[in-house]
Amino acid sequence: MLPALTMGDPAGIGPELAVKAWRARSAPFLWIGDPALLAGEVPVVEIGSPEEAAALTGTALPVLREPLAVAATPGRPDPRNGAAVIASIRRATELALAGKVAGLVTSPISKHVLRQAGFPYPGHTEFLAALCDAPGEEVMMLASPRLRVVPVTVHVSLRHALDLLDEARIVTVGRIAARALRRDFGIAAPRLAVAGLNPHAGEEGLMGDEERRFIRPAVASLRAEGIDAFGPLPPDTLFTEAARRGYDSVLCMYHDQALIPLKTLDMAEGVNVTLGLPIIRTSPDHGTAFDIAGQDRADPSSLLAALALARDLGEQRRRFDAAQ
Amino acid sequence: MLPALTMGDPAGIGPELAVKAWRARSAPFLWIGDPALLAGEVPVVEIGSPEEAAALTGTALPVLREPLAVAATPGRPDPRNGAAVIASIRRATELALAGKVAGLVTSPISKHVLRQAGFPYPGHTEFLAALCDAPGEEVMMLASPRLRVVPVTVHVSLRHALDLLDEARIVTVGRIAARALRRDFGIAAPRLAVAGLNPHAGEEGLMGDEERRFIRPAVASLRAEGIDAFGPLPPDTLFTEAARRGYDSVLCMYHDQALIPLKTLDMAEGVNVTLGLPIIRTSPDHGTAFDIAGQDRADPSSLLAALALARDLGEQRRRFDAAQ
Repeated sequence: MLPALTMGDPAGIGPELAVKAWRARSAPFLWIGDPALLAGEVPVVEIGSPEEAAALTGTALPVLREPLAVAATPGRPDPRNGAAVIASIRRATELALAGKVAGLVTSPISKHVLRQAGFPYPGHTEFLAALCDAPGEEVMMLASPRLRVVPVTVHVSLRHALDLLDEARIVTVGRIAARALRRDFGIAAPRLAVAGLNPHAGEEGLMGDEERRFIRPAVASLRAEGIDAFGPLPPDTLFTEAARRGYDSVLCMYHDQALIPLKTLDMAEGVNVTLGLPIIRTSPDHGTAFDIAGQDRADPSSLLAALALARDLGEQRRRFDAAQ
Repeated sequence: MLPALTMGDPAGIGPELAVKAWRARSAPFLWIGDPALLAGEVPVVEIGSPEEAAALTGTALPVLREPLAVAATPGRPDPRNGAAVIASIRRATELALAGKVAGLVTSPISKHVLRQAGFPYPGHTEFLAALCDAPGEEVMMLASPRLRVVPVTVHVSLRHALDLLDEARIVTVGRIAARALRRDFGIAAPRLAVAGLNPHAGEEGLMGDEERRFIRPAVASLRAEGIDAFGPLPPDTLFTEAARRGYDSVLCMYHDQALIPLKTLDMAEGVNVTLGLPIIRTSPDHGTAFDIAGQDRADPSSLLAALALARDLGEQRRRFDAAQ
């Protein structure tokens, strides 16, 4: 089964990257969007359902049509095309829920533009969670060749992150991460390193008591559930090459604790993976990049990694579920 | 002129690393401590003043005697030796202030052990600042082959760091960093990247307002003083190889924002540099490591880098001051 790649904002780098990804041929996919965006760039075959895609291997890009309202101009997003952008995501999600695609890979959208089109969600992930009838259960993982990180708090100010953190949240996210590592990543007994919050993980309470108050108890709760969690560990030495050999993923307390090491190590190859939903979903770790859209300058590395990972996670999940 | 290496805790890895550093011969130094700690390991010549060290190049390690109260046992620190540990630091500082050594390189001490010996400072740096009659003016830099970072807040909880941050503190630290980059690192017009505090540097206030309230104004104040500061920049993309080409140092808002990327990139070769004092001071970026002391397992990379950097910074500062 192929993963489905959504159109994303048609004025961003999404269409260009879909073309580059098809040409690379390393990770086949079907595309949901307006075929006019790809005209002249790749051979396209419009299909009516994902099943028809199998026959095309390598000769043409299978496309499920989702027409734009107005022609797209690179770098100039138009809220009138918001409905088509949203329809592409909705259709990919429905196909994933129906088991017709391996998962979905989302091309970047502009929250700002979609808000003007009446889209009430802060981003893709919350919309997907709503479509899957699992609001609030989504967990973000960033995966790259050298590191997998799962931030417990994400797109909030650092001060707000400190207020949100507690034992229950760490346990919930850790449980979802451990389950995904087993079911989707094929790791039988995942080792989950848990980062401290403060310098030196608080140094026995000298620099903050969150480790003592709720991070250590959260680790104990996870261990009581049979999850190989350990920590809290000093954040600054947690991402060295030697440290990375000791775990399969790191549970991080805030956005930049997770994203700084990941991007420092593997900027171009990071993939955003949404855990906790009934579907497989990955996305490249970049935005619409309106400033370089249409200039043939976008790097497809992250998208290619996202497509390959969606395929692999989908296959692994099917194997795992079949063995239950 | 040679840098002076202090004894550090005699029960830690300091003596072993002094031996390894002398054998490596890449960065000559004089040592201040009890020669009994080095007996049989390196040829030692006791000297009465730093001037006598010049004649010994490479044939023996010049030692200024600072005797221990009791014999040291690796891994078993003894508060009775605290006075000698402190005397070694004091003497090195006095020699640096008198211009008799290029600077001082401090071997690791145990705050815990020294506190039992009546030492009232939280660490080396505050003690040095007091000896230099410059309390509160010390600024920490971590320097490694690929990155130099200067955290505006250091050894406090993350929550306390958020409370301490303001425009004045960022400007003060930025000014000291820029001055040191010019005077000691020989960079005529240092480029100082300033990190944001929040994810995506706040994304125009969506995730925190500290960037708008005081980081951006601090950058403007530094620029008004003729310093090439710029930012606030999104922290997660600030340490990639491409980003690193755009600056000479990063002003970071908190400990782990600085230390995570530095240790992820260059774990073994990081050097702690104290800026803002009238003397040059560096130290290896590790602790006493009582758990491996006396087992010949300690890695001298960071100490060798600290010794070489102290020598280079001392030379550069003399050249800079002579040209004024």
